[in-house]
Amino acid sequence: MEKSVNKAVAFPKIVIIGGGFGGIELAKRLRDKEVEILMLDRHNYHTFQPLLYQVATGGLEADSIAFPLRKIFKNQKNFTFRVTEVEKIDQTAKTLHTTIGEISYDYLIIATGSETNYFGQKEIEHFSMPMKTIPEALNLRSMILQNLEEALIENDHLKKSSLLNFVVVGGGPTGVELSGALAELKNHILPKDYPELSIDAVKVYIIEGSPAVLGAMSEQASAKAKQFLQNLGVQVYTNMRVVIYDGMSIKLSDGQSINTKNVLWSAGVKGAVPEGLTSGQITRGNRIIVDEFNRVKNTNNIFAIGDVAAMITTDLPNGLPGVAPAAIQQGKKLASNLIRIINNEPPEAFRYFDKGSMATVGRNLAVVDIGKIRFQGIFAWFVWMFVHLMSLVGFRNKIVTFVNWVWSYFSYDRGTRLIIRRFNRQSMTEDPNAR
Amino acid sequence: MEKSVNKAVAFPKIVIIGGGFGGIELAKRLRDKEVEILMLDRHNYHTFQPLLYQVATGGLEADSIAFPLRKIFKNQKNFTFRVTEVEKIDQTAKTLHTTIGEISYDYLIIATGSETNYFGQKEIEHFSMPMKTIPEALNLRSMILQNLEEALIENDHLKKSSLLNFVVVGGGPTGVELSGALAELKNHILPKDYPELSIDAVKVYIIEGSPAVLGAMSEQASAKAKQFLQNLGVQVYTNMRVVIYDGMSIKLSDGQSINTKNVLWSAGVKGAVPEGLTSGQITRGNRIIVDEFNRVKNTNNIFAIGDVAAMITTDLPNGLPGVAPAAIQQGKKLASNLIRIINNEPPEAFRYFDKGSMATVGRNLAVVDIGKIRFQGIFAWFVWMFVHLMSLVGFRNKIVTFVNWVWSYFSYDRGTRLIIRRFNRQSMTEDPNAR
Repeated sequence: MEKSVNKAVAFPKIVIIGGGFGGIELAKRLRDKEVEILMLDRHNYHTFQPLLYQVATGGLEADSIAFPLRKIFKNQKNFTFRVTEVEKIDQTAKTLHTTIGEISYDYLIIATGSETNYFGQKEIEHFSMPMKTIPEALNLRSMILQNLEEALIENDHLKKSSLLNFVVVGGGPTGVELSGALAELKNHILPKDYPELSIDAVKVYIIEGSPAVLGAMSEQASAKAKQFLQNLGVQVYTNMRVVIYDGMSIKLSDGQSINTKNVLWSAGVKGAVPEGLTSGQITRGNRIIVDEFNRVKNTNNIFAIGDVAAMITTDLPNGLPGVAPAAIQQGKKLASNLIRIINNEPPEAFRYFDKGSMATVGRNLAVVDIGKIRFQGIFAWFVWMFVHLMSLVGFRNKIVTFVNWVWSYFSYDRGTRLIIRRFNRQSMTEDPNAR
Repeated sequence: MEKSVNKAVAFPKIVIIGGGFGGIELAKRLRDKEVEILMLDRHNYHTFQPLLYQVATGGLEADSIAFPLRKIFKNQKNFTFRVTEVEKIDQTAKTLHTTIGEISYDYLIIATGSETNYFGQKEIEHFSMPMKTIPEALNLRSMILQNLEEALIENDHLKKSSLLNFVVVGGGPTGVELSGALAELKNHILPKDYPELSIDAVKVYIIEGSPAVLGAMSEQASAKAKQFLQNLGVQVYTNMRVVIYDGMSIKLSDGQSINTKNVLWSAGVKGAVPEGLTSGQITRGNRIIVDEFNRVKNTNNIFAIGDVAAMITTDLPNGLPGVAPAAIQQGKKLASNLIRIINNEPPEAFRYFDKGSMATVGRNLAVVDIGKIRFQGIFAWFVWMFVHLMSLVGFRNKIVTFVNWVWSYFSYDRGTRLIIRRFNRQSMTEDPNAR
């Protein structure tokens, strides 16, 4: 195992865990450098997370927001890729324990991103649906469609409403985009596909703990997003927390309960930290403490970038936002810093350039903040689409996504509402025996 | 359950089991007729089976060869659809036992198509991969890609070759198309994605029991297809049967063994007959015996169309070929015959119009027989693409598939080589716990 993964070369060996935005940018920037790069990921593809909600709601095929990692680096001579899970980092021995054996490194880059945070609420974790990976988005799609099918043949009023109430927990960009997409599914697809169901029987809720949805954006963007959601028919609850969810009924902090089998959890993320770091290296949100060179605390050859890294500065006491541009900028900077470090030159401090933020609620409805410039509505929506289309990896994916979006725009339709793998409610995952 | 499925109407109730080519054509043709149609399928989508091999080999996304059944009939007032599995037909009570309860019918149409036939060889069934449904094609895709990944880190020569030998059993159109696509994957994708693997280490075999591949087509088409396959580097074995396969090594009738973990089974199909028919109603290939009006033997209100039906005539002693045009033509004729029967008019005998047959081996390589006209090569390939593109249900699917094909043509690339659901070799299905 060891032999075939660790080639005998003289160049420093850089191991990158994770093929997200940060990891890819870093490896690309090291293209012609005298280093040996090994990227590890548990998937053989890069996931474009910002569009997962469209996969979950049947607007896009999974394949158009994923891109084979090998293909990105197909002509890069100093790059090797392996599908594996990292079980543990051994900082002393400078090795990784993985599902394909032990792998040594000279420099280790942790670019593992974030995972769903249930804040220790085990029951909610079991019964609600996350949406951070493509299999999770596909499970969600199957669950939504199966519950609509089941509602058709359910005569018990309470059981029927539990199948038709959709509760999105968390009012960040993911929650807003998901609840908006569900409302559009209700408004445009349901009347055509399920004429037997009353459209009023379907309800979409969004539950946010803070006073506003999109709290990280401008007040203007928050207010407009709320209004857009309400116009689409979404019930927006702010200053509201989930107390408990037992798979049948979700209890909120004001005492009310919503009868539902569809709870979609987008209320928080935490760093996806591999085993082998010390508690002193971890901070709030399970993120890895790094200095201004992205170097992990108390190490000199381990770095972390992107969502999993917490670069706390006086300007940014909470670290950087968990968005693609922050990961990409860190990957870019770390590439040049690694070369400096290898050449015994001093590294340069990372500076974050805030490109602004945006979110889409639905057709013609988006909000954009770029510095002091704020705009909302149809133009913001076109900007949102353009930026996301351009950020997708691969020309084929751009074209296929563009075709789907143009198609949806003119037809008010979503093309891919298919239950490809049946969802099993007992195991809360797809049914492997479904044919 | 019963209440919501069986509405109280005066029109005759026609229940169609299966949303394939035949079932869809039949239901469409009954659009404005005074009947109540209920279609049942275990999937909520129609599968375009002729292109499953492209999904399996990463050329197309699954979503572009599937189409939501509800969407096809979205404005058809006399049509209802349910996702369910039929457990049993009760011919006497005129009811179906299903997973969503009991359903009554006045006329029953069995349009359940065919399933993989292992001819009773249980061990082969367990260890080899079928490709009749979208989940199966996706499992196959994951298995192929995972075995390539595994080969990279395998140092044992025998184990490595077992991961890199691909054996397609069955030389009909599916087997020919699948082995051709695997050869193209080897020739064009492997050198780019897996530069560490020697291209010569990968071998593709096709095993056919009869003297020729594409035996149902003209001698010219058979010979040319064999030559095309050989030019692509496929080892073509004719007059050869599989004796046994234990998951590691496949033994052939001439005594030789091939060390392989990739056996793709396309050597036969049989009718997917629901429970509740008598043995006297079934014939060779597990098909349902029907008369020239598609009426099931010994019944007056049950019909079968498409692959599951055996319409034996003096002209066609083996019944009709299991192809889409035969199912579509039967669906069309049965629609008018059902109306005749309901109106107490005599039904008209079905006449099959043979539109010809075709198969593709690879880029610029296809064979076409239309009556006495036979041609092969690049023009045949364009005809094949045009016919398949036009037969795909839905404009969006046509466009997305067209984009993928144009893209592949110019880039020699296959866009979607993603392991979205990991394949588990123990259970021979995907791993439900993979994230």
